[in-house]
Amino acid sequence: MISPIRIAIAGHGNLGRGVEAALTRNADMQLAGIYTRRPPAQLQPLTAGTPVHAMDDLPGHADRIDVLILCGGSKEDLPRQGPALAALFNTVDSFDTHARIPDYFAAVDAPARANRKTALISAGWDPGMFSIQRVMGEALLPEGATYTFWGKGLSQGHSDAVRRVPGVAGGVQYTVPVPQAVEQVRSGSRPQLTTRQKHTRECFVVLAEGADADAVRQAIVTMPHYFDEYDTTVTFITAEELRREHGAMPHGGFVIRSGHTSAGNSQVIEYGLQLGSNPEFTASVLVAYARAVHRLHQQGQYGAKTVFDVAPGLLSPKSADQLRAELL
Amino acid sequence: MISPIRIAIAGHGNLGRGVEAALTRNADMQLAGIYTRRPPAQLQPLTAGTPVHAMDDLPGHADRIDVLILCGGSKEDLPRQGPALAALFNTVDSFDTHARIPDYFAAVDAPARANRKTALISAGWDPGMFSIQRVMGEALLPEGATYTFWGKGLSQGHSDAVRRVPGVAGGVQYTVPVPQAVEQVRSGSRPQLTTRQKHTRECFVVLAEGADADAVRQAIVTMPHYFDEYDTTVTFITAEELRREHGAMPHGGFVIRSGHTSAGNSQVIEYGLQLGSNPEFTASVLVAYARAVHRLHQQGQYGAKTVFDVAPGLLSPKSADQLRAELL
Repeated sequence: MISPIRIAIAGHGNLGRGVEAALTRNADMQLAGIYTRRPPAQLQPLTAGTPVHAMDDLPGHADRIDVLILCGGSKEDLPRQGPALAALFNTVDSFDTHARIPDYFAAVDAPARANRKTALISAGWDPGMFSIQRVMGEALLPEGATYTFWGKGLSQGHSDAVRRVPGVAGGVQYTVPVPQAVEQVRSGSRPQLTTRQKHTRECFVVLAEGADADAVRQAIVTMPHYFDEYDTTVTFITAEELRREHGAMPHGGFVIRSGHTSAGNSQVIEYGLQLGSNPEFTASVLVAYARAVHRLHQQGQYGAKTVFDVAPGLLSPKSADQLRAELL
Repeated sequence: MISPIRIAIAGHGNLGRGVEAALTRNADMQLAGIYTRRPPAQLQPLTAGTPVHAMDDLPGHADRIDVLILCGGSKEDLPRQGPALAALFNTVDSFDTHARIPDYFAAVDAPARANRKTALISAGWDPGMFSIQRVMGEALLPEGATYTFWGKGLSQGHSDAVRRVPGVAGGVQYTVPVPQAVEQVRSGSRPQLTTRQKHTRECFVVLAEGADADAVRQAIVTMPHYFDEYDTTVTFITAEELRREHGAMPHGGFVIRSGHTSAGNSQVIEYGLQLGSNPEFTASVLVAYARAVHRLHQQGQYGAKTVFDVAPGLLSPKSADQLRAELL
């Protein structure tokens, strides 16, 4: 009997709670503790008896933890926590600001290498599973084009943007792929698609008392970067409807690689996700990669890593023999 | 400028010709030669000037070849060629007899290790891309079920079986997933499905002169192992129709992992392939894995490997920096 991998969670928002839930489904791992910036006594762990500590206790607990899963946000938390904690722990995170990944990788790599730790960054579904499909699609079909569609799903960033508009009391935004664009891509025709042709944006908004609906709608659909390049619809709903019908966090999307292997032969690879809960799926990905990080560390592979560096077999609790016999 | 990876092809059937075509789309590789059991002068390479040699010349050419792609069949060729050639070359093959993979792995592993070679077995789409999805689906969603559907596509083994029936002058067999079963699985409901509920089999048959149609149909649909567990339709066509409408080798299918991350949240991962040419796609997979084998060998990773042992980044001609910046 191999002793379980001791996992700790840093940060207990939606993602941290998802990691807690995912760990109950992985018998080879054990939740060693949850670390929070709130007063630890205020936090309700999913399983009674789970140790809860202050984030500041982390440095003293290095010998209790095999892999630390960082569940903070990419904007405020990870740029600071990632490099600092990679000096002390093997880590996994879901850093998802695509444009800053090279800098973040470098910032995590140096302390991890210097301290012989393994730190896997940017796991999740995009970046993460979708990224793997983009790399493999290109490698398998060098002559071709890759398309990423997101949704239908709730976008946190765009929902926040809607809620910042004066006159908005509450609201959510769904990103929706345009069905005709998807069908065109699936057919193998390799269209050139503009931003507007690929996705629409659907907002469900609760008006503040006395707010002018037309002014709010106009402010949303013309908002630069967020909405001006898209066809956006705004539907006004009640606070009760918002609570009842828009409380879940579904998401998903697909990556399609369309290519040719000879003049007459078109080949299409499609990877799709339909996620009932975006944070719970992301959490499940982090947990599987925590297993891989533990193994990479045992093999002496130190420094920052990404999903591109992880062989599929390292994600599974099964042995290589078992995988070949059962799943190849 | 890094010198190109020198690839050789052993066997020049549909798969070998597909590898030849795929190599023209990968600028970092070079076709060093084609090895055949036919008289070399009879073989027409795709690109004029490609060296063609007798299979028996292979042992003397070890210093000209970085990776040898074995394009023989799993029944007769690979069980003999795979172990023998892995003692002399880094190899990639598409051994696809699922039940015999553990034995074949062992038979290739020993000579490869003894001679410090790297030999990747069972690449392609199933085994291969589908196997990766089965492993990752299970690892990401431990509570769930995996479904593999094949088709719509031309099955070589079942077409051969049809053609062996007395009274059959020619014919092909298509494996077709049952749409209702697929929809049920996509919905996240995790049904238990029998063999009959998952796929149907469609045969297009040219009768031999004087053959009895009903007797032929009966012989096909009751054939043990091949057809008796399926709903099979037999359509009689002319030799001209067979040539005109059934000459391509399309295939494909999908792997669906359906699971839950908490009681209320269902998550569905789907990976699908629509292949205009089955052998050309398999060939493209072999070529991408040849690149990975070359790199694993340079890293000193000797012995037999499978797709489970290969990190996605190793398949791409791009550097790790470039992949992180462009595709993560």
